[in-house]
Amino acid sequence: MTPARLRDLLARVADGKLDAESALEELRELPFSDIGAALVDAHREIRTGIPEVVFGERKTVDQIVDIVGTLRRHGQSALVTRLDAKAAADVVARIDGAKYDASARVLQAGPSLAPPTTDARVAVITAGTADLPVADEAAATLGFLGVEALRIDDCGVAGLHRLLAHLSRIRSARVAIVIAGMEGALPSVVGGLVAFPVIAVPTSVGYGASFGGLAALLAMMNSCAAGVTVVNIDNGFGAAVAATLILRGGVRRADV
Amino acid sequence: MTPARLRDLLARVADGKLDAESALEELRELPFSDIGAALVDAHREIRTGIPEVVFGERKTVDQIVDIVGTLRRHGQSALVTRLDAKAAADVVARIDGAKYDASARVLQAGPSLAPPTTDARVAVITAGTADLPVADEAAATLGFLGVEALRIDDCGVAGLHRLLAHLSRIRSARVAIVIAGMEGALPSVVGGLVAFPVIAVPTSVGYGASFGGLAALLAMMNSCAAGVTVVNIDNGFGAAVAATLILRGGVRRADV
Amino acid sequence: MTPARLRDLLARVADGKLDAESALEELRELPFSDIGAALVDAHREIRTGIPEVVFGERKTVDQIVDIVGTLRRHGQSALVTRLDAKAAADVVARIDGAKYDASARVLQAGPSLAPPTTDARVAVITAGTADLPVADEAAATLGFLGVEALRIDDCGVAGLHRLLAHLSRIRSARVAIVIAGMEGALPSVVGGLVAFPVIAVPTSVGYGASFGGLAALLAMMNSCAAGVTVVNIDNGFGAAVAATLILRGGVRRADV
Amino acid sequence: MTPARLRDLLARVADGKLDAESALEELRELPFSDIGAALVDAHREIRTGIPEVVFGERKTVDQIVDIVGTLRRHGQSALVTRLDAKAAADVVARIDGAKYDASARVLQAGPSLAPPTTDARVAVITAGTADLPVADEAAATLGFLGVEALRIDDCGVAGLHRLLAHLSRIRSARVAIVIAGMEGALPSVVGGLVAFPVIAVPTSVGYGASFGGLAALLAMMNSCAAGVTVVNIDNGFGAAVAATLILRGGVRRADV
Amino acid sequence: MTPARLRDLLARVADGKLDAESALEELRELPFSDIGAALVDAHREIRTGIPEVVFGERKTVDQIVDIVGTLRRHGQSALVTRLDAKAAADVVARIDGAKYDASARVLQAGPSLAPPTTDARVAVITAGTADLPVADEAAATLGFLGVEALRIDDCGVAGLHRLLAHLSRIRSARVAIVIAGMEGALPSVVGGLVAFPVIAVPTSVGYGASFGGLAALLAMMNSCAAGVTVVNIDNGFGAAVAATLILRGGVRRADV
Amino acid sequence: MTPARLRDLLARVADGKLDAESALEELRELPFSDIGAALVDAHREIRTGIPEVVFGERKTVDQIVDIVGTLRRHGQSALVTRLDAKAAADVVARIDGAKYDASARVLQAGPSLAPPTTDARVAVITAGTADLPVADEAAATLGFLGVEALRIDDCGVAGLHRLLAHLSRIRSARVAIVIAGMEGALPSVVGGLVAFPVIAVPTSVGYGASFGGLAALLAMMNSCAAGVTVVNIDNGFGAAVAATLILRGGVRRADV
Amino acid sequence: MTPARLRDLLARVADGKLDAESALEELRELPFSDIGAALVDAHREIRTGIPEVVFGERKTVDQIVDIVGTLRRHGQSALVTRLDAKAAADVVARIDGAKYDASARVLQAGPSLAPPTTDARVAVITAGTADLPVADEAAATLGFLGVEALRIDDCGVAGLHRLLAHLSRIRSARVAIVIAGMEGALPSVVGGLVAFPVIAVPTSVGYGASFGGLAALLAMMNSCAAGVTVVNIDNGFGAAVAATLILRGGVRRADV
Amino acid sequence: MTPARLRDLLARVADGKLDAESALEELRELPFSDIGAALVDAHREIRTGIPEVVFGERKTVDQIVDIVGTLRRHGQSALVTRLDAKAAADVVARIDGAKYDASARVLQAGPSLAPPTTDARVAVITAGTADLPVADEAAATLGFLGVEALRIDDCGVAGLHRLLAHLSRIRSARVAIVIAGMEGALPSVVGGLVAFPVIAVPTSVGYGASFGGLAALLAMMNSCAAGVTVVNIDNGFGAAVAATLILRGGVRRADV
Repeated sequence: MTPARLRDLLARVADGKLDAESALEELRELPFSDIGAALVDAHREIRTGIPEVVFGERKTVDQIVDIVGTLRRHGQSALVTRLDAKAAADVVARIDGAKYDASARVLQAGPSLAPPTTDARVAVITAGTADLPVADEAAATLGFLGVEALRIDDCGVAGLHRLLAHLSRIRSARVAIVIAGMEGALPSVVGGLVAFPVIAVPTSVGYGASFGGLAALLAMMNSCAAGVTVVNIDNGFGAAVAATLILRGGVRRADV
Repeated sequence: MTPARLRDLLARVADGKLDAESALEELRELPFSDIGAALVDAHREIRTGIPEVVFGERKTVDQIVDIVGTLRRHGQSALVTRLDAKAAADVVARIDGAKYDASARVLQAGPSLAPPTTDARVAVITAGTADLPVADEAAATLGFLGVEALRIDDCGVAGLHRLLAHLSRIRSARVAIVIAGMEGALPSVVGGLVAFPVIAVPTSVGYGASFGGLAALLAMMNSCAAGVTVVNIDNGFGAAVAATLILRGGVRRADV
Repeated sequence: MTPARLRDLLARVADGKLDAESALEELRELPFSDIGAALVDAHREIRTGIPEVVFGERKTVDQIVDIVGTLRRHGQSALVTRLDAKAAADVVARIDGAKYDASARVLQAGPSLAPPTTDARVAVITAGTADLPVADEAAATLGFLGVEALRIDDCGVAGLHRLLAHLSRIRSARVAIVIAGMEGALPSVVGGLVAFPVIAVPTSVGYGASFGGLAALLAMMNSCAAGVTVVNIDNGFGAAVAATLILRGGVRRADV
Repeated sequence: MTPARLRDLLARVADGKLDAESALEELRELPFSDIGAALVDAHREIRTGIPEVVFGERKTVDQIVDIVGTLRRHGQSALVTRLDAKAAADVVARIDGAKYDASARVLQAGPSLAPPTTDARVAVITAGTADLPVADEAAATLGFLGVEALRIDDCGVAGLHRLLAHLSRIRSARVAIVIAGMEGALPSVVGGLVAFPVIAVPTSVGYGASFGGLAALLAMMNSCAAGVTVVNIDNGFGAAVAATLILRGGVRRADV
Repeated sequence: MTPARLRDLLARVADGKLDAESALEELRELPFSDIGAALVDAHREIRTGIPEVVFGERKTVDQIVDIVGTLRRHGQSALVTRLDAKAAADVVARIDGAKYDASARVLQAGPSLAPPTTDARVAVITAGTADLPVADEAAATLGFLGVEALRIDDCGVAGLHRLLAHLSRIRSARVAIVIAGMEGALPSVVGGLVAFPVIAVPTSVGYGASFGGLAALLAMMNSCAAGVTVVNIDNGFGAAVAATLILRGGVRRADV
Repeated sequence: MTPARLRDLLARVADGKLDAESALEELRELPFSDIGAALVDAHREIRTGIPEVVFGERKTVDQIVDIVGTLRRHGQSALVTRLDAKAAADVVARIDGAKYDASARVLQAGPSLAPPTTDARVAVITAGTADLPVADEAAATLGFLGVEALRIDDCGVAGLHRLLAHLSRIRSARVAIVIAGMEGALPSVVGGLVAFPVIAVPTSVGYGASFGGLAALLAMMNSCAAGVTVVNIDNGFGAAVAATLILRGGVRRADV
Repeated sequence: MTPARLRDLLARVADGKLDAESALEELRELPFSDIGAALVDAHREIRTGIPEVVFGERKTVDQIVDIVGTLRRHGQSALVTRLDAKAAADVVARIDGAKYDASARVLQAGPSLAPPTTDARVAVITAGTADLPVADEAAATLGFLGVEALRIDDCGVAGLHRLLAHLSRIRSARVAIVIAGMEGALPSVVGGLVAFPVIAVPTSVGYGASFGGLAALLAMMNSCAAGVTVVNIDNGFGAAVAATLILRGGVRRADV
Repeated sequence: MTPARLRDLLARVADGKLDAESALEELRELPFSDIGAALVDAHREIRTGIPEVVFGERKTVDQIVDIVGTLRRHGQSALVTRLDAKAAADVVARIDGAKYDASARVLQAGPSLAPPTTDARVAVITAGTADLPVADEAAATLGFLGVEALRIDDCGVAGLHRLLAHLSRIRSARVAIVIAGMEGALPSVVGGLVAFPVIAVPTSVGYGASFGGLAALLAMMNSCAAGVTVVNIDNGFGAAVAATLILRGGVRRADV
């Protein structure tokens, strides 16, 4: 039974019969038959190295305050994405130390994670100024996860030298998040110029036959630059998480 | 003849042989009714400056031989597009002097049009070698229309220097036909580098989420390079006609 | 400057102060790295003959005033498209001499470009009165670029004589921008009647199965009139730029 | 018969031979239960005035011979649509007097219906020669239903005078079936020129962004010519049935 | 007039007063040039038997008042469709005798057309109460065109007896307009029960995978009941025009 | 009554007062024509075991009060779905005992149905908290139909142990309604873990390439877990009805 | 550890300390941490009550023979779906007692499951004869699962009496699988007539705007008959599994 | 060289030998003009760390032999993807040492790249056996790039324990490529269980509403597991390149 197994496991750790790393490995498996619901929240970070982030859309202020408050009481920081300004004002008023980034539509409560054991940076590149909110969401998420973002804006493919002028800065990064709406061509161009992973983020910027970002999404899926991968339309958050996992090199952070 | 018929009509009204209501009925038809079927083919060239071109798909060899033969007997050259190799062989065997371009899938019978009164050229640029048949169709059509094509191949955006290495050659043209499948980004890049019209041709090259060229088509429609216009997927022929009309500067050829 | 940097680089290699590998790294960057950010705006016009135009959607009034102000200080005129009336009022109040066209949703600051060295005109033809705002955007853009527009409205294909009555006027132009929503048939009809390039603009006018202009867009892509090219839904601006480039005959304007 | 059954049912309830629940169960069936299966085949023609027509696709030769043979034995004529040439040859060999129209892909066994009590005709108009098989299916169906077709071919909107030259012939009809692929514009133009119903048939003729006829279908649904109605892609048969019902003026044929 | 012009033209060529090239230019215009713009407005009714109807969407009150006022001054009645209540109130205040039907969103000014020379009626059948506004638009249009509508509502296929209970009334009509959203099945069922034309109108009623009426539209295009034709989503107006043309039997009204 | 009418009909035929052709005409109508409008509502429950439920969208308050009032006067309970809060307040004020569930957007008037003769429960499982309103609609409908719901929330597949922790509770049910937006994967996972029917409900929760629930819908249609069936996007009501029919085992309730 | 847990469990069962039912419950949970790959196949049946069925498409004959052979050696029967005739002939030649149903494209090896403890039947209803192969797949799967199918074919909604004539037979079932292509209306009609669950199967029967079954799928998703659920296009197999689970009433079969 | 050219240019301007306009023309070319075409092939590997890979589709055997032969003569290895078996046999016969993997449809000539300076592995996980060819393409590409693949097959979400049984092996990798067709749910589940990047590959496995892999693609784009990125349908090659770039940690390989 789980309680027995858990008690036994911890006893063996205490007795020095089992080293912590092996115990951790076992604990990771544990939930699949016997874990209590109470352990769920903490577990995500253990499994994936990324804390649970709250998707703010379609949630009431009360629900958000409740979730963030609970996380804060357990000593965890909280990130809420896609939160509109009006709801954010209410949450900020009720949660100590909560800060809201209006362009990114992201609210953070509590300190950011410790940085990874690398000074590598993530380039966050946009095609146009209308793509900035998505880049801001990516940057806010990276900041929360302890990762440094290198911002390079307004480099659309119709004015190549703007991109080329920043090439050495871009190449100083280890991952690039490339954000573009309309025809979504920028990730292909960047992907052909760098030797590291490119995460493409289509945006809903455009009109008419952009169909809310579908044109950019399809373009990015069909990139002729091998090695470009794609996330959902306007999903700066997801791109930032993927970039962070890449930077960490598949090694879980030391502090979790 | 129209004038005769009109004169006759009015004479009969004046003479009381035709009542007003019947005359009204005939007058309603008048502006449209007196172009004989025999004038149809010649008229298109008179109106638009481009001779009628035969779309070869879904036509039998007999139908094609019939149309081409008729045009040749009236002293006109003929171009047949989208003709498969097997049908083309039959047509070539039955029409004097017909020549078939297997990659372009285009058959020409009779001499090309006289060149326009300009030495301007049309750049025909492809992103990848799989786009060549579409470029060949464009080039064969340009040739038929008396226009010189400047071919530049395999310049996809994932390898920018291939494009940039050809930039001065491209800039020596006066119109560019830019042909790309997959993410369809090349027209945007070219459109940002030249001072003349760019006609984008999406191709069905790709797989999966390219959806038969839809991804490239949407990307090109959403090009951030103002001044790029688009034709149908794989439509090298249409792009060549548009480019020819542009080169002519809106002036009909001297010989029609 | 590039030459200086290059000279310095090679000197250091010759002197043994720089090893070959580091020089290789710098050479890799070279072709792209030395265009200063300050040159960007001017460069677009040099390259493409069309000044940068500001896409007003998703930009704040502050951002627009900032961009337009900068362009004006450098002696350049500015055009802002897709600007709603409320934002436009604010911009007009803060930028000297800015004028707003409410139907076109276009704001211009500074004089229009000098006209091209031709008296050729661009016909701007609409199918219905609901298409007027798109035609107005095209006309405002043409005006900014120094090109004369010939307006012909409400010529939908269900009433052919309206179109035919204007045929000689249409034929007096050298390029036609043909704007239609719903079934998008007008460009095919016009394309079959004129000897110059036709740029088709699908509009979002319609309902139900028009799917925001998709029906018109697809119809225009499939036009049986060879030589018709297409721009994005409601993109009067893009059509005007393409028409201007065509009028110029691929020759850059004398004054740039 | 229902009355008998009903009378019996109520009698049994009154006599206590049938409990209320069972009676309820039978009453539930009542509204629907008394159409005998034996009446079904004859019934379609009685109800709708159109005999059952066999859709040949996905049926084996045996199945088709079986159905057609049964109809013939009951003295009815049979029409089979969408039958490929190979299957048709087998059916013709096994059914007396069956005739196959290879272009229309339609097989008829037995005489056509008696003509309606009107000399009105149905105009069958095509945009291009590639649309002919659909027109042939419509004409073969009209012939089977005893209706005279007036064929007018190759009148695409890019060459308006071809259409206009036939206008008085078209106006001599009472219904028009207008068949077009590609941009599907012809029904709008015809609908604006005639005073009777226009049935539009999109065809799968085209390539690229025609998406198998979807472009033409959407265009026709959005026709700016009020009064145009649309049937499925390539559905010449359905258009012919609709046209026949219109010609009959909503009156069932005298002989059924 | 054309004859005069033609006569004059040829005379001048013969006399050497006109060179061949200029004559050619004039001849090019000939087939289309002689329909005066002044005849256009009256012409639609002459050509198609249906007066011009104003599509109210995207038009300002001033534009609508202007058009309706002009028609009234010429003694013609006017119908405006898709007019919202607020704009309608303004128009009613400014046009004598204008009446607005809020559910149909249709405004009529002036008397309805004289009825056709038949007492035949058009059945207007809806699947659910949410489809009523579309039926109201159809009925208001029929009323304007002098045709009697037979209204039968709320007969969705999930409760067949509701439909079947009205069957004899439905069969007393000569055309049916069948209006349904969601799965759009009603026209197939009606089409299998009647011997006259069925015009199907898909509506945008539904949610989720109805995709704004696309599900119903596709279902109706694929109806297994031959003879069903389809108009655009929510297009009650177009269905009414088609039904009127059918009722008239292809004969123009006596009074035009 | 039908029998009376039938008896009368046959009597008149026997007496020679009615000719055979007229009798045939009436007999054709018979099976369908004699259900009075007053029976419609009651009949649905008799046929399908589910009372008529009012779809609140696009209905006015007056219409809803009218329908609900009529049902109440006949002693039937009423359920109104998709009713917004503002309209609901008005209805509650006018209908005795009506109760509104704001999250489910469901209004009930009158008592719930008697429970089925089983203690089996329906598990209602959601992937995320944003899916709760759809689950609430399902639960409110189940409650109205007398069925007990077992609620299990926030079990998305990215945190499997949340689901696995509830597995024995889930297995205590006899049917599962599984509700998920975004990638819609939860029904496949549940379907692989239980031995009873799973009804999948895609929701419109998501953004970008979720296309209003289309992504989840397609995923569920393609579930690799055999036995999963799907209802429309956000259709908690339909899922509850299907689950109730399943629980009843195809046996109509004792009380109808 | 699982092995320990298993040993302990069995010992306690042998000692009479644990009853078999409780042991079974524990064993059902077992696989989630420690089960070997060799146990996978048997487990699915334990969990879901449905044995693993082999999807034949894209598998080689060798792969299929291997899987089926393994299952047979473990004493299990095997069902292979979507197997083409040529591959089936090879499999039949190599597996003892394998039988192939060519219309259903289903191969069975070994006896069918024991029937459920009910005499309830599943109605399998098709709209047209072209839908028969899908119905055959459903029936073959039901047969394999020990369930009796009640076949009712060719009941499309354009000929309602065909359906109504079978209504009492249909009502004798406890679940209905309703299969239709084209407009997919049949499930709505059946769903409004019966008091038990309806599983709708869209088929790819149709052409043009049926888009491979999409039209029918969307129609079924939007059914106005509450309680209809839908499976993938042409998925007769999945519908049969769902129907079987419904018939079993959520109780696992006695023999597993 | 650029410096020379620049120096020369300016000298000639100063000396009056070159007018300003010509100098302007040359300066316009400057930023892009100095990458020699001869460097192109080698350059891709220098820029991106990945050698050029030949896309075999739509290429003739001659074209492939030509490209591969050239690369081999320059001492480079070559990889050709999407090459069908027949063409591959011809290439193998003409290129020394070329080897073809028929399931992956990949041909390799020359040795694989040296492994990266890490023993990290890439997990390649499939949902079903029909997904194997895509996994084989990924594995063949990884092999070519010197990276070790850890293959784990047939872990679809409908049988979770198959996946869970392999969890510790999966966790021993540093990147996962997760390949699934049908509902595409596997990447979400894996993404919730591991602490490293997950690259999702939708496949075209499925039928009906899978629409050639679109269902899986959309599901993966909407994954609720943050950090999942997606490549094109069936694009095992692209996933392998992305995984390799991630493994390398953004550092170019030592040997280029």
